Amino acid sequence: MAQTQPRKTRLTFGVMLQGAGSHMNSWRHPGNPADASVNLDFFIANARKAEENGIAFAFVADGLYINEKSIPHFLNRFEPLTILSALATTTRKLGLVGTVSTSYSDPFTIARQFASLDLISGGRAGWNAVTSPLEGSGRNYSRPHPEHSLRYEIAQEYLDVAKGLWDSWDDDAFVRDRQSGRFFDREKLHTLGHKGRFFQVEGPLNIQRSAQGQPVLFQAGASEAGIGLAGRHADAVFANHVPLEDAQALYRSIKTSALAHGRSADDVKIFPGAGPIVGRTHAEAEEKYQAIRNLVSIDEALAYLGRYFDHHDFTAYPLDAPFPELGEIGKNSFRSTTDRIKRNAALKHQTLREAALEAATPRTDLIGTAEEIADVLIGRVEKQAADGFVLGFPVLGQGLSDFIELVIPVLEERGVYDRSLSGTTLRDHLGLPRKTSRYVDASAGVQARRAG
Amino acid sequence: MAQTQPRKTRLTFGVMLQGAGSHMNSWRHPGNPADASVNLDFFIANARKAEENGIAFAFVADGLYINEKSIPHFLNRFEPLTILSALATTTRKLGLVGTVSTSYSDPFTIARQFASLDLISGGRAGWNAVTSPLEGSGRNYSRPHPEHSLRYEIAQEYLDVAKGLWDSWDDDAFVRDRQSGRFFDREKLHTLGHKGRFFQVEGPLNIQRSAQGQPVLFQAGASEAGIGLAGRHADAVFANHVPLEDAQALYRSIKTSALAHGRSADDVKIFPGAGPIVGRTHAEAEEKYQAIRNLVSIDEALAYLGRYFDHHDFTAYPLDAPFPELGEIGKNSFRSTTDRIKRNAALKHQTLREAALEAATPRTDLIGTAEEIADVLIGRVEKQAADGFVLGFPVLGQGLSDFIELVIPVLEERGVYDRSLSGTTLRDHLGLPRKTSRYVDASAGVQARRAG
Ligand SMILES: Cc1cc2nc3c(=O)[nH]c(=O)nc-3n(C[C@H](O)[C@H](O)[C@H](O)COP(=O)(O)O)c2cc1C
Ligand SMILES: Cc1cc2nc3c(=O)[nH]c(=O)nc-3n(C[C@H](O)[C@H](O)[C@H](O)COP(=O)(O)O)c2cc1C
Repeated sequence: MAQTQPRKTRLTFGVMLQGAGSHMNSWRHPGNPADASVNLDFFIANARKAEENGIAFAFVADGLYINEKSIPHFLNRFEPLTILSALATTTRKLGLVGTVSTSYSDPFTIARQFASLDLISGGRAGWNAVTSPLEGSGRNYSRPHPEHSLRYEIAQEYLDVAKGLWDSWDDDAFVRDRQSGRFFDREKLHTLGHKGRFFQVEGPLNIQRSAQGQPVLFQAGASEAGIGLAGRHADAVFANHVPLEDAQALYRSIKTSALAHGRSADDVKIFPGAGPIVGRTHAEAEEKYQAIRNLVSIDEALAYLGRYFDHHDFTAYPLDAPFPELGEIGKNSFRSTTDRIKRNAALKHQTLREAALEAATPRTDLIGTAEEIADVLIGRVEKQAADGFVLGFPVLGQGLSDFIELVIPVLEERGVYDRSLSGTTLRDHLGLPRKTSRYVDASAGVQARRAG
Repeated sequence: MAQTQPRKTRLTFGVMLQGAGSHMNSWRHPGNPADASVNLDFFIANARKAEENGIAFAFVADGLYINEKSIPHFLNRFEPLTILSALATTTRKLGLVGTVSTSYSDPFTIARQFASLDLISGGRAGWNAVTSPLEGSGRNYSRPHPEHSLRYEIAQEYLDVAKGLWDSWDDDAFVRDRQSGRFFDREKLHTLGHKGRFFQVEGPLNIQRSAQGQPVLFQAGASEAGIGLAGRHADAVFANHVPLEDAQALYRSIKTSALAHGRSADDVKIFPGAGPIVGRTHAEAEEKYQAIRNLVSIDEALAYLGRYFDHHDFTAYPLDAPFPELGEIGKNSFRSTTDRIKRNAALKHQTLREAALEAATPRTDLIGTAEEIADVLIGRVEKQAADGFVLGFPVLGQGLSDFIELVIPVLEERGVYDRSLSGTTLRDHLGLPRKTSRYVDASAGVQARRAG
């Protein structure tokens, strides 16, 4: 892979705003409002707290299918684009990243909505473009759920279209000269005329570029096809928190994929999730972990596990026998995640009970004192396993407060973190340059009409 | 039609937030920022000003196709759901109504986004469900533009689905009992299972009902099919400002259509547009009108006219000959509007020049002193031509200020207007009761599972 310049280690964080926390039963934890997933004040308070402490962006996940077995914060939650737009006017610097599926939406609409959020927020929008793992999504959208590889083929073309639409108007296209009545410069309007396999989109988009040029593109699939999509299109990747070597391998694959697509390794930032549980002592952290683990019954843990495998019913298997053989089940869903669960179960010789409880409340290397957690986080960045982290606190209220109070001071002391966001756009916060229009010849700084 | 109870006349207003105003060249007017259509501060300032003066809702129109001939504020504007969500956290009582097309979106997504806006805003969301008049929209959405009547057939079923999804969870479905771990009551979850001609949507929706039960449904088409849609589904209708007798006829048709669908005449409120231009004297109002009219060249007026007729090119006709015969042109677009333009041209023996200038800057009965304007507005409500108005000021900044400063005091004096919004939800503001769930037996106040 590419030589990366030696440079000062610096930690960048996003924070996942997902109900009462990333843990399936976080709503039961006394440190959160039980209705957190639809509590606007809770969203605003956490977003502001994050921003005041230098966290670069809020991250909102999403899903397009629920049933009575879904976990609580998925049953009833805000839709990403609306809640992020509401946060745009209640924060000033925080990046606003939302998940929208390329399998169940129209590129003209989604390009527009993110461009609009980007403009409303002064260049702080990000889009986590996912392909939708859940089979049931199709049943809410009057169509069959596309198979895994087809979803990624659609996604590739979809992002071509979205990026093309975002460049419909050059930065200086709108002259708005009252005297002459000339509103825009005809030469600076570009009609896309996309005619592809899945999409035919004429354009132009009816909205201008933003302070950061284009919304930041996140991607979150870690299968081979997902890595291919990231390498070609993504500015950032949201990944699972996995063991160091696995994280390094994924990091390398994504950077390599970027290079293969003629981009530089620095063009795509890797943000694994991280769900620290911090205590003043290691024992206190362990107690907090146990308290969270105790929020889940074994039945709930089985249902939770089942969700990754397309709502597969795990109650049919003996609990204390080895983790079952599943064959193709789950392959068309969260593939990279189900592969990892299976591998992990085999490696650790887990029973179904153990694997389910572990999936519901993962025991990671991020349970400990502030110093221990700082070591892991800094180590992961130094060892090229991460460029930053999306903090998905198992229990959001308490987790975020603890992190700010205990971990951030240690990171500051070690000179790897700064509580003030010096830039104004999300690209600034992520160390990404402003996105230049495809119609601008960057080297010459001159507008060039490209063919096609 | 139905006997309506004699009751005190009361005026209810919405205000259209559309760039610098509803006039095609309002951006050239010195009273507005030239970038008004993408100026967040301008949106917030007008929304707050409206709210402080008792205006019941903001109304955001929309369109899904532009080209270089489109009028300025359509070329570059915020997307409705995102801007309304941003306004949700910067206003407290104002209703937030946005336009989204049923021809180019998915009911699961749109039901969700409006439900989310409704929850974020505390029950203030409204959806203006339109069928998209512009042929070009299809070229941005990889599919042919459906023909007029087909669009309305799709819309009928679409709204069935959306309303069904909105009732997925009974009002008291989420018990959130931390002790027992019971998050919701299984009996109060309803899976729609819609299988129709255009849509197959399983549900449930992943969001709860709001303070007003369901978002308010506006509808804006005035053709026969549009009236049918309104009668069956709409809580409110946005209509064009037309001569009194036409407005009364439309009013009657819509109320009659509601009755034919087993609803009461009061269940659907009629809100014609109104674009007052007010002066301290009649002459001053006339001057203001002329200043606005002078913002448009004849070429621009022809292009503006053409937009209603699917971007038909009117420059091909002699300017000072009678308004041309157009046959079927425009029939598949803004049908009710094009019919009216043609009728008007015939009635007044207009040349093409006159018809175009008139279309670009309509001369209405709402140009005059505050007293004259108050007379017209009150008269229209008393004569059953309107239940309220969507104020579409030709020049928004000046128009809204003048209206508040000059017209509202007259309305207050006459006892038909109150600057304070006494309720909290949009349904409150419109005099509509909270929307009861289809699964609740209203008379008994008991949950009843309905068939189908
Ligand atoms: C860390 C991570 C986060 C994800 N977040 C979401 C999400 O919020 N919503 C969603 O629909 N899919 C999400 N996905 C699913 C992926 O986008 C993708 O649809 C699925 O994982 C299959 O792709 P893969 O096999 O490449 O991982 C996520 C996946 C990963 C690995
Ligand atoms: C007063 C009024 C306002 C409208 N506003 C919109 C709008 O904002 N966006 C849109 O796409 N169509 C809008 N329409 C178009 C209608 O929804 C509909 O698509 C078109 O007029 C054809 O229906 P009709 O023949 O029933 O009027 C509007 C129509 C009327 C009469």
